[in-house]
Amino acid sequence: MKCRKCGGSAALELRRHNAAFCSPHFLEFFQKQVREAIRHHRMFPPGTPILVAVSGGKDSLALWDVLLGEGYETAGLYLDLGISEYSVESKAKCEAFAAARGQKLIVERVVDAVGAPIPVVQQVTRRPTCSGCGLSKRYLMNRAALQHGYPVVATGHNLDDEAATLFGSVMHWQTDALPRQSPALASTHPKLVRRVKPLYRLSELETAAYAFLRGIDYIVEECPFAQGATSIAHKETLNRLEETSPGSKHNFLFGFLERARPAFERVEDVALQECTSCGQVTTGAVCAFCKMADLVKRRTS
Amino acid sequence: MKCRKCGGSAALELRRHNAAFCSPHFLEFFQKQVREAIRHHRMFPPGTPILVAVSGGKDSLALWDVLLGEGYETAGLYLDLGISEYSVESKAKCEAFAAARGQKLIVERVVDAVGAPIPVVQQVTRRPTCSGCGLSKRYLMNRAALQHGYPVVATGHNLDDEAATLFGSVMHWQTDALPRQSPALASTHPKLVRRVKPLYRLSELETAAYAFLRGIDYIVEECPFAQGATSIAHKETLNRLEETSPGSKHNFLFGFLERARPAFERVEDVALQECTSCGQVTTGAVCAFCKMADLVKRRTS
Repeated sequence: MKCRKCGGSAALELRRHNAAFCSPHFLEFFQKQVREAIRHHRMFPPGTPILVAVSGGKDSLALWDVLLGEGYETAGLYLDLGISEYSVESKAKCEAFAAARGQKLIVERVVDAVGAPIPVVQQVTRRPTCSGCGLSKRYLMNRAALQHGYPVVATGHNLDDEAATLFGSVMHWQTDALPRQSPALASTHPKLVRRVKPLYRLSELETAAYAFLRGIDYIVEECPFAQGATSIAHKETLNRLEETSPGSKHNFLFGFLERARPAFERVEDVALQECTSCGQVTTGAVCAFCKMADLVKRRTS
Repeated sequence: MKCRKCGGSAALELRRHNAAFCSPHFLEFFQKQVREAIRHHRMFPPGTPILVAVSGGKDSLALWDVLLGEGYETAGLYLDLGISEYSVESKAKCEAFAAARGQKLIVERVVDAVGAPIPVVQQVTRRPTCSGCGLSKRYLMNRAALQHGYPVVATGHNLDDEAATLFGSVMHWQTDALPRQSPALASTHPKLVRRVKPLYRLSELETAAYAFLRGIDYIVEECPFAQGATSIAHKETLNRLEETSPGSKHNFLFGFLERARPAFERVEDVALQECTSCGQVTTGAVCAFCKMADLVKRRTS
């Protein structure tokens, strides 16, 4: 196999693009895909300070690395979920990454905000796996961005993540979730920051290769609670389809964004207001996060 | 396991309905699902003469059997595709079914209409597998119904067929195919008969059980050209999902029909006209069937 760009020996084959690249040209390809994502979805203009949500995994650290390379002013945001060893190790990876590059890392602890770490939150709320965690993450990302003056939060969601989420929504035709499936979610309220996913054009394999080639030290283990999650089952289904027909994931996600998503997009006529308890944006009187935190407080006291 | 209706020993478990039935109550359940399909989609009013497209397989013969049991005036339509032994055997099954019940069976031969049997059509047109065959079937079903005065053609498509077709359309977001995915397609032109699928609420396993319990003799072999068809791969994918989560297929198809299909439905502003060659309905000057038949004629002469 030869590199599509220079004809040298290829290090990586990208079947869905019917292409192969040597290491330097793969890195170039990767960066170009991130630039194209930012441009196509008008994620943020040059000069915007960006808060990068980092988990210590390959995707989010690769994203932070690319954004630094592109010259953006960034800070990392690490959300400490309090999942014992997993959280200790993943936090250490983020701290080491930030220190080596002289970057600021903001740390928010779920235990401070909710009153208990994620394992306890799951036990007492009896929400489905990952649901309370996802709610906490979205809430804390937005709050930290507002507090520290970042108009945009970037997350490391890749093509596989996005295709798996879409697959789940489509298998149940969750017509409320479908219009929200997008690489860039607009700020629809002064207290709601923009959320973007600059890696949505790149597969899990590609972010792993990028992290490896760039010498990024990341946590390889998955979250211990992710075992048995439907998102993992959906990824396996899509991997099988990709195996027989390279490009399946890409076509599924991109076809949706280009042709189907507009059909589900309706004017969001829900009135956004500020939570009477915390002041963050919600559709009701008290936001879902405060309700959850209140429940945790009552059940653990 | 006990029958949900009578508490007797169950012959069949329907996991997606979380129910089990003895043989007589399963047959009752099956007939009720067909009645519900006809009612819910206003497929045809009582007394409408119905042309049942039969292939000799379990689904279409089960459908014909149920419609006869419900007292409908029907005739069978067998399309002879000219696929050697497979066609000979499947035709014999249809003839035996019709003769045993004193019903009329109309036979149309692809070789008469197209100028060559399906295996030759596939070779000379180089269309993807099943594409030329599907086109021929839809064309001949409509033509036969018009000629013999039937306002409705009923086909044996079951839940698995419909879910697999939907899955294929969704993986590629074929926004032109999605609005046409329906258990009942209206007649939008005087020369276009209504097409309905009264078995869309019943799984492949259920139609097989019905045919078995009713003593229907059907052809078990699949069409030899179906091997490797993507529709079969899609069925396998959906079967795996159904295995872990019973009801997946049902929710996927029914969720689409109830919540998503309306989003894709636009006023079909394509003007339907009559083919200058055969007089059947088309969007262009000459219909796709006549173009294919013409190509076959030129390449085989």
